Amino acid sequence: MKKRMVIVGLGLIGASLALALKGFEAYEIVGVDVSEPTLRFAREHGVGDCVTADAGAVIPRADVTILCLHPQGILRFLAEYGARFQPGSLVTDVCGVKCAIMEGAKALPDTVDFIGGHPMAGTEYSGIEHAFAQLFQKSHYLLTPGPASQEVHIALLERMGGYIGCKDVVRTTPARHDRLLAYTSQMMHIIALSVCDDEAFFTSKGFEGNSFRGCTRVAALDVQLWSQLFSMNAPALAECLETLEENLRTYREALLSGNTQALTEKLAHGAQRKRHMELDGPDTLTLE
Amino acid sequence: MKKRMVIVGLGLIGASLALALKGFEAYEIVGVDVSEPTLRFAREHGVGDCVTADAGAVIPRADVTILCLHPQGILRFLAEYGARFQPGSLVTDVCGVKCAIMEGAKALPDTVDFIGGHPMAGTEYSGIEHAFAQLFQKSHYLLTPGPASQEVHIALLERMGGYIGCKDVVRTTPARHDRLLAYTSQMMHIIALSVCDDEAFFTSKGFEGNSFRGCTRVAALDVQLWSQLFSMNAPALAECLETLEENLRTYREALLSGNTQALTEKLAHGAQRKRHMELDGPDTLTLE
Repeated sequence: MKKRMVIVGLGLIGASLALALKGFEAYEIVGVDVSEPTLRFAREHGVGDCVTADAGAVIPRADVTILCLHPQGILRFLAEYGARFQPGSLVTDVCGVKCAIMEGAKALPDTVDFIGGHPMAGTEYSGIEHAFAQLFQKSHYLLTPGPASQEVHIALLERMGGYIGCKDVVRTTPARHDRLLAYTSQMMHIIALSVCDDEAFFTSKGFEGNSFRGCTRVAALDVQLWSQLFSMNAPALAECLETLEENLRTYREALLSGNTQALTEKLAHGAQRKRHMELDGPDTLTLE
Repeated sequence: MKKRMVIVGLGLIGASLALALKGFEAYEIVGVDVSEPTLRFAREHGVGDCVTADAGAVIPRADVTILCLHPQGILRFLAEYGARFQPGSLVTDVCGVKCAIMEGAKALPDTVDFIGGHPMAGTEYSGIEHAFAQLFQKSHYLLTPGPASQEVHIALLERMGGYIGCKDVVRTTPARHDRLLAYTSQMMHIIALSVCDDEAFFTSKGFEGNSFRGCTRVAALDVQLWSQLFSMNAPALAECLETLEENLRTYREALLSGNTQALTEKLAHGAQRKRHMELDGPDTLTLE
């Protein structure tokens, strides 16, 4: 008999998940969204085996529920539907902050297993019309199980991660996740915005190369989503930014000192660090 | 009769140019390098129609000479071989700073037409073994003609830019080039280094996504090359960095203020700027 997996929220991530999970084991994939145009698009493009606007009707019979809403939307959904998840079922999410989400999930009944999830994939585009099944290829999939999470559920998420093409599935704690993601993800978005805030930005069109495109791409972000992610992880993110400002300042001072020997040594040190950590994956320029 | 184009320096850019220019009009392409292993690699991989270590032997009979050395190497080459270029010939370069190079080119005889050039392409890898003909696809090719440069030579460089796949060929002044490149290129490299200098860098492996890979890729830079580029454009670069530090600080303060409304408005402003300037080209994540 088919099992049922419900994906709540058919934006870029939810709809891409629905596409990528097509045919996964014996699961029927049910998409949920409040937007009628989104549901119509989903029906016309085969996003999910079926879709509905009625979360309350499908949640109680879901074996797995994946919450793909904005962070505050996930917290609201957990508060509103928490008592209606099927006992024994697995509930997970895809949110880029984990402490606040795991805290919100504490309100769920003990019979529901909530495991935080974060497939580290995305583009600077939002919405179901930009969804594609390959979005998760080579991405890291991070899991933050609760203290009572079942190994069978963790194993299920690991198989799902493999099926959608993730490079690996890594278990961590919510605190560690949020501390590291402030650095690897949220700060990259603040950098991109800060570069685009420069008054030379528009003037420079036609003078940009790969590095500029690579660094600024994510500035065209989903404002509500990232405003929530930043706010829910503000202290860690602010700390990373302060370190970055300090690091930039030391390069600026090395430049202005006119001491090219010192500058060269500083560059050699930084370049060496990067060479020690090859990062293979999407957005690395393909060479041939 | 074949004309002769001499490419001096068969590193990543010079060798890629030699490959990309294969078959361009009636030119025989002669590669010059001081390294015997580089020359051997060039011969074995068809980089250039022929190659030599003897610049002095080929420069006097070159119709076009393209200097693809590091910035200081270009200045040294101009000083050493300046009197030996063929009268009436075109000399150009590929260097990422232009004021210092144009200044160095003033020592050339009046009979030689030096036009500064900068194809905005590159990867974080150096050397002939990483060269590939497609490197320049969709790149901007910037030209800084001298006051007496001939239109026929500018037109030749424009045809070359088209032949190697550049998106456009843009004429500008050395001062404008260096001011804008401090922002669009050099600063991106300092950002990448500054991010990698964070002590969380190695710890974060496995927690990085597209934006982190995109931003930090260029930190693995050619130390000598970038040390020279930075030093030769230090005031402009330092000014850009100071603006960036200030922009980052205002995001940090908005975060720490706890005023999410103000943060959201700030994000909306930055994201809107980016959306107004779509930058198509290499290193933009491909969507489907």
